[in-house]
Amino acid sequence: MPDLVGDLQDIAELDLDRTARRGYPEAVFCAGKTPEQVGRIAAAVRERPDVTTLFTRADDQHAAAVLAALPDAAHDPDAGLLAWPPAPPDPTGGLVVVLAAGTSDLPVAREAHLTARYLGRESELVVDVGVAGLHRVLARVDLLRRARVVVVAAGMDGALPSVVAGLTSAPVVGLPTSVGYGAAFGGIAALLTMLNACAPGVSVVNIDNGYGAGHLAAQIAAPQDGVPS
Amino acid sequence: MPDLVGDLQDIAELDLDRTARRGYPEAVFCAGKTPEQVGRIAAAVRERPDVTTLFTRADDQHAAAVLAALPDAAHDPDAGLLAWPPAPPDPTGGLVVVLAAGTSDLPVAREAHLTARYLGRESELVVDVGVAGLHRVLARVDLLRRARVVVVAAGMDGALPSVVAGLTSAPVVGLPTSVGYGAAFGGIAALLTMLNACAPGVSVVNIDNGYGAGHLAAQIAAPQDGVPS
Amino acid sequence: MPDLVGDLQDIAELDLDRTARRGYPEAVFCAGKTPEQVGRIAAAVRERPDVTTLFTRADDQHAAAVLAALPDAAHDPDAGLLAWPPAPPDPTGGLVVVLAAGTSDLPVAREAHLTARYLGRESELVVDVGVAGLHRVLARVDLLRRARVVVVAAGMDGALPSVVAGLTSAPVVGLPTSVGYGAAFGGIAALLTMLNACAPGVSVVNIDNGYGAGHLAAQIAAPQDGVPS
Amino acid sequence: MPDLVGDLQDIAELDLDRTARRGYPEAVFCAGKTPEQVGRIAAAVRERPDVTTLFTRADDQHAAAVLAALPDAAHDPDAGLLAWPPAPPDPTGGLVVVLAAGTSDLPVAREAHLTARYLGRESELVVDVGVAGLHRVLARVDLLRRARVVVVAAGMDGALPSVVAGLTSAPVVGLPTSVGYGAAFGGIAALLTMLNACAPGVSVVNIDNGYGAGHLAAQIAAPQDGVPS
Amino acid sequence: MPDLVGDLQDIAELDLDRTARRGYPEAVFCAGKTPEQVGRIAAAVRERPDVTTLFTRADDQHAAAVLAALPDAAHDPDAGLLAWPPAPPDPTGGLVVVLAAGTSDLPVAREAHLTARYLGRESELVVDVGVAGLHRVLARVDLLRRARVVVVAAGMDGALPSVVAGLTSAPVVGLPTSVGYGAAFGGIAALLTMLNACAPGVSVVNIDNGYGAGHLAAQIAAPQDGVPS
Amino acid sequence: MPDLVGDLQDIAELDLDRTARRGYPEAVFCAGKTPEQVGRIAAAVRERPDVTTLFTRADDQHAAAVLAALPDAAHDPDAGLLAWPPAPPDPTGGLVVVLAAGTSDLPVAREAHLTARYLGRESELVVDVGVAGLHRVLARVDLLRRARVVVVAAGMDGALPSVVAGLTSAPVVGLPTSVGYGAAFGGIAALLTMLNACAPGVSVVNIDNGYGAGHLAAQIAAPQDGVPS
Amino acid sequence: MPDLVGDLQDIAELDLDRTARRGYPEAVFCAGKTPEQVGRIAAAVRERPDVTTLFTRADDQHAAAVLAALPDAAHDPDAGLLAWPPAPPDPTGGLVVVLAAGTSDLPVAREAHLTARYLGRESELVVDVGVAGLHRVLARVDLLRRARVVVVAAGMDGALPSVVAGLTSAPVVGLPTSVGYGAAFGGIAALLTMLNACAPGVSVVNIDNGYGAGHLAAQIAAPQDGVPS
Amino acid sequence: MPDLVGDLQDIAELDLDRTARRGYPEAVFCAGKTPEQVGRIAAAVRERPDVTTLFTRADDQHAAAVLAALPDAAHDPDAGLLAWPPAPPDPTGGLVVVLAAGTSDLPVAREAHLTARYLGRESELVVDVGVAGLHRVLARVDLLRRARVVVVAAGMDGALPSVVAGLTSAPVVGLPTSVGYGAAFGGIAALLTMLNACAPGVSVVNIDNGYGAGHLAAQIAAPQDGVPS
Repeated sequence: MPDLVGDLQDIAELDLDRTARRGYPEAVFCAGKTPEQVGRIAAAVRERPDVTTLFTRADDQHAAAVLAALPDAAHDPDAGLLAWPPAPPDPTGGLVVVLAAGTSDLPVAREAHLTARYLGRESELVVDVGVAGLHRVLARVDLLRRARVVVVAAGMDGALPSVVAGLTSAPVVGLPTSVGYGAAFGGIAALLTMLNACAPGVSVVNIDNGYGAGHLAAQIAAPQDGVPS
Repeated sequence: MPDLVGDLQDIAELDLDRTARRGYPEAVFCAGKTPEQVGRIAAAVRERPDVTTLFTRADDQHAAAVLAALPDAAHDPDAGLLAWPPAPPDPTGGLVVVLAAGTSDLPVAREAHLTARYLGRESELVVDVGVAGLHRVLARVDLLRRARVVVVAAGMDGALPSVVAGLTSAPVVGLPTSVGYGAAFGGIAALLTMLNACAPGVSVVNIDNGYGAGHLAAQIAAPQDGVPS
Repeated sequence: MPDLVGDLQDIAELDLDRTARRGYPEAVFCAGKTPEQVGRIAAAVRERPDVTTLFTRADDQHAAAVLAALPDAAHDPDAGLLAWPPAPPDPTGGLVVVLAAGTSDLPVAREAHLTARYLGRESELVVDVGVAGLHRVLARVDLLRRARVVVVAAGMDGALPSVVAGLTSAPVVGLPTSVGYGAAFGGIAALLTMLNACAPGVSVVNIDNGYGAGHLAAQIAAPQDGVPS
Repeated sequence: MPDLVGDLQDIAELDLDRTARRGYPEAVFCAGKTPEQVGRIAAAVRERPDVTTLFTRADDQHAAAVLAALPDAAHDPDAGLLAWPPAPPDPTGGLVVVLAAGTSDLPVAREAHLTARYLGRESELVVDVGVAGLHRVLARVDLLRRARVVVVAAGMDGALPSVVAGLTSAPVVGLPTSVGYGAAFGGIAALLTMLNACAPGVSVVNIDNGYGAGHLAAQIAAPQDGVPS
Repeated sequence: MPDLVGDLQDIAELDLDRTARRGYPEAVFCAGKTPEQVGRIAAAVRERPDVTTLFTRADDQHAAAVLAALPDAAHDPDAGLLAWPPAPPDPTGGLVVVLAAGTSDLPVAREAHLTARYLGRESELVVDVGVAGLHRVLARVDLLRRARVVVVAAGMDGALPSVVAGLTSAPVVGLPTSVGYGAAFGGIAALLTMLNACAPGVSVVNIDNGYGAGHLAAQIAAPQDGVPS
Repeated sequence: MPDLVGDLQDIAELDLDRTARRGYPEAVFCAGKTPEQVGRIAAAVRERPDVTTLFTRADDQHAAAVLAALPDAAHDPDAGLLAWPPAPPDPTGGLVVVLAAGTSDLPVAREAHLTARYLGRESELVVDVGVAGLHRVLARVDLLRRARVVVVAAGMDGALPSVVAGLTSAPVVGLPTSVGYGAAFGGIAALLTMLNACAPGVSVVNIDNGYGAGHLAAQIAAPQDGVPS
Repeated sequence: MPDLVGDLQDIAELDLDRTARRGYPEAVFCAGKTPEQVGRIAAAVRERPDVTTLFTRADDQHAAAVLAALPDAAHDPDAGLLAWPPAPPDPTGGLVVVLAAGTSDLPVAREAHLTARYLGRESELVVDVGVAGLHRVLARVDLLRRARVVVVAAGMDGALPSVVAGLTSAPVVGLPTSVGYGAAFGGIAALLTMLNACAPGVSVVNIDNGYGAGHLAAQIAAPQDGVPS
Repeated sequence: MPDLVGDLQDIAELDLDRTARRGYPEAVFCAGKTPEQVGRIAAAVRERPDVTTLFTRADDQHAAAVLAALPDAAHDPDAGLLAWPPAPPDPTGGLVVVLAAGTSDLPVAREAHLTARYLGRESELVVDVGVAGLHRVLARVDLLRRARVVVVAAGMDGALPSVVAGLTSAPVVGLPTSVGYGAAFGGIAALLTMLNACAPGVSVVNIDNGYGAGHLAAQIAAPQDGVPS
């Protein structure tokens, strides 16, 4: 049956020239791909050290395939993220602050934090500042007010972005996580909470979309005079 | 066709003897009834001044029908509540505190507050303490810590109960309201937030169920030695 | 029954001092309030011409109540918005671009556009650029690339933000509208589309939340060096 | 207990005479069957080389069972499809074009493509033309305008059919896929997007139903004068 | 406030040149528009008698506004449809058959039927052929087998398309209607039924989307050799 | 435009001969029809006094139209039901018992009760036997055990069918009603409760479908030896 | 920690005396139990050969545990059912007919069929009579009209009960199955279809609840004069 | 990549001083953590024998990790709970009664029961009192009336709390469990039933949230004069 679909060899050509033009890294979403496919992409990436490539949602097998082709790639197993070349760019623009409500939100928060960092922003990650212990987030108000944008990762009740938006005038990126059980519905409860935040200044990305939140934060905090496009 | 259903005359006999035995008021839920039906019930209630009767979810027409039969009934139009005899009992048991996150949550919060009061508790109502302005709720911590139970009415993101439960060791009754629009889904977002409260000590009643929240709060704050049953 | 709730007279005191400190207008959400309540707030606002106040989701009766107290207020009936003092501040910061996919999305888009303008940004509104006629949005690429942030209002399939995010490196605020019928589910379809945007750089606010989108856009496009808080 | 249900031996007799009469292949949906059941069906199929039989949603074990009985069957593992006799008919009727928004949509798109081919149509499959990179789909406009029908497979935001329907006057079959995570809800988001397509000319089949989309496309593109029935 | 949005005068310019090029009518969706807006569009339409314009989802007030500007427009009040110029084109291509399961499905079915007719197809409308009385649909098998495409409008259980698809090899366009109550969920039950049709050859449009179904049917039944685009 | 749809005059011919053959009444569902349409059907019904016809979901205007044509029709306004000829048949078969959990469930329960009666069964209706006061339903156990089938109408928590099924070995028809608010979701909560009844012997009809429940009950309680078909 | 819960040894005592009194078998739902728990129950059952016990939803391990204690138990692995004593009672009452729309619905249909049989009814099981091939169900009309009750198991579109109810005056028990994918939502689509059946006489049990459907059918078809309770 | 996130070593410092101040145990939710993480926390706990620590939702591997560090910890494998120091405090306050509707609800009910016990309350656990056999719950009325609070764990129809609330004036904590299948939707059906309980006095916690229900019950039953905070 190969003759029927033989014209599909070059399925997903990387658009690295366009990436270089925009100034942002190329991202390879591993979750829907086999380790073999990811390995072949990693081999192609090796030809273009001028462009940073991120491999997101990489499990252990994906990571092994990437590291086989790019042995010096940076790898954060908790966040499921690899980057090559491994060194992030020198930071420009404003400060990104990433908050994780609980420790279970940490993998997603790290994905956001590292993505922002590889897109060229300074980023700070703070964990375990859920609203059940307000003193923890109140202790960070100074940091929040220095931020150009705040990413808030939270599952369960997803209440933290509402509180944070009341404490700072920086835009808040709500990052609902699938942490929870029962009526948490895999993150839907947190998503709805954030969409209905009673304080203005909150917008929301998809559940567990740490890459998207970090990318958006990097765009918001980009240097004013010259976001390439 | 009347002969077919002629045996239905005495549809909803009030169970006032049982009510008297339990020590809690009888409640008449007006929303699904015609003003005429409510008026007839009010006339029957007049025979039993020994039992307090609450008329809940009463619109203007329901209220007029009740007041025609019981001219001295107490009436709170915002809460849609009437009570007869009009005087609430002397308070016993612990303190009930009712919080309303925003002014739009006030009608439901008043229904809870007045219900608790007519079931024999001392009750205090505080409004406009949403999480977007944390200083407001933090200014009430002393009151919260004196409470035997706290009812928290909130729509939109429904985040307030999580915050309150972190500030007091009293049980918190989450009372989601239908305030909001779009993805608030008529109170579902707030309901889910409260079910997923990240602090222990929160339980939830139905959306806009001020009567239920107030009734439950009165039960929780009842004098220890002798809850009648 | 007034003695029970007599301590509630001053329900929703405006926090104008805090508003002045933050530098953003105070907003009064009219939808859940009676015209009388809105009128009383407008009268109070008159004492503070140093703070801009927005009245959002104001229907004709709300507007009449505001204009009775503040006859020179600016009023956009389509957006359901009033502002006083009527003159928006001189624009600072980056450019906000607001796109409306279809003409039915226009009221919500105008609310976003005017909110951004009253929060001190330059804002440009473009209408009828749905993805069914790609030439329309492609004709605006230069404008999109000058924007510091793009708000995209769309109902029905909500596909426009995905397309726009592929055309610019500015952050995109997805603003789903309740335009549509049947399986549009009052904006849920558009909301889900935007949450799943296949291009990075998109975040989403609540359905029909033009005020929230405009407020967020103004925060994103704020001058870098000195967002007051 | 066999005596109770002993009359069920011939559970699913193939209706091959009817199939031959209609001119379309018989399809065996493997997903709900054991490899043994599929193997027995394949053995029965061997008796009827005059009818093409497709085995859909066949995993590796199903495929092994089919190939044991029909060693020369055509097999596309990615699409989970087997066909016997292996040679597709000479194409008649109009051109079917199948688009896959991303590489993860490819298995479903291939199922549609091969089904259309085995039902007797010429079919062309194009991959990685998502709306985030409009230049890719715009580069295919000529092909789209030669098509008698276009099948568009897309997950996540499902926005591609709206765009394609604006570029061609051929009917568009929206084929939502379960690609995505979080608020993609296993393809529901893409399904809703397509049902609300802002351009006329789009209809939708079930999530991941590549066989159904390909079958329908073959019917739409059938030679005008004589679709047998 | 007019100065802020003064650049929005020409909100929804009709794209009549493009329409003329495609050969299909322009459609004006009235539901989201005021009668005044529709009237102004109708006045503009009068300048272009070379293009057929359909006004869909027009209530009595919309219709009056159209007829004031275009007194000789054809008007079907049940379908909420107006057309100008009033004469449909001579039919070309294949036969469209529209089935309505029950009489309550008739308005939506008529919208589909008339749309197909104004897009240039011969169309036949059959009503009250629900599956509870199979003899009715079986009596129409000859007609179904002459059809190039069948539109099936059904609410409640939405079961008719499955049955019809088993009786003909023409493609079936499922048109779920909002007829029903309770767990019909405004058409969702019928929509799901059709998406899960156990016979191949069924696709689905949005609930109550008679215009979309008719448009699609006209495209499917278009003359093979020259669908303009 | 009448010429296009002129063949639709005789839209919904009553199938009275078939009805007579089956032995059950014909039913006319009024909710989706205009009073004029209902009046015309009533006039046609007058010609066939040998068949009982029920008009269900008839509001005041529908009823007036029926009574204009059939002045002696039986009419139960609460149930929205009319019957002609007005006398129900002599009862045969087993006893139908209809329970209404609360008074708000009564209209739907009456529709079931009267339908069963007009289909030829003896039927008994009992009201206000909700599970919050178990003594009420326990007082009816003798009646429940004489029943051939029990219809249980309940909204809100919908818990009554589970309790009843534990008290009798007769089949129980769960009839969820839309009574309730908030998370009752217009009857969905009650519907789900009944579908998950922890006692065997419960099946469920659509929300508020009193006619369907009564019809089914009459079929279940039909005389064993000769259900006509 | 055993001292805290030491009073829970006799968790689920079988209520065999009550079972014997009712005349119906005792049922043990295995799905939520460990093989050990099921084995212990089977050992207890051995003491009471006067009562038939059914073990439902038994997987291979459950079955092995039952057979270890009751080696001569009847076992139908497809239906996941065991019965002891193994011989079903002599049939009394009316005929139960069980239809399975497709072969994938067979396990659930068998569970219903065997349950009815063990509750003392004659039962006939017919498979592969989906609505896509109407001739199959039409060929069974005589059987359907002999039935006292018809159970219809169907997944996907769930359309078969509507068709069957139009062909017989026996009550129809809709038994939705989880067969299908995508928008079948694990049986919800079929469930909704059946709840909205356009023919009267259909009620519905929970998804895949073959035991419940068979039990209910046995109750409906029970001999008129003496349903024990 | 460690240098990027090197500041995250001390992720989740236990707040044991605050715990000691409140008088309630610290809880470690194991479900989202690796056994290694749990083991490290257990080692830290060993330093503070003055505070009781609960490990909830602990699977076998979690338990092994805890027991390695705290060999004398109490362990209830069914409830997934460990406690250290192992001895619960002497009971104070009122009586907690925990009901489990069925044996499958027992693990969740035990978690509630043991939590209440470790928070210092007397607690009694009763199992298999579902509403299908009312005599079982009626036999416990005396116990229910001695309770200060009743926790009711139920899956499937979730009807038990409504019945219990009608039998006692103690507050009822509804604890929906995920027991059931099909339209039980993993506990949603039971959750909705409880939210709509027709008797006042019921509130609800999240699905399967035995810890939360037990914690809340302990708060409600706390000694009146001195709830620490």
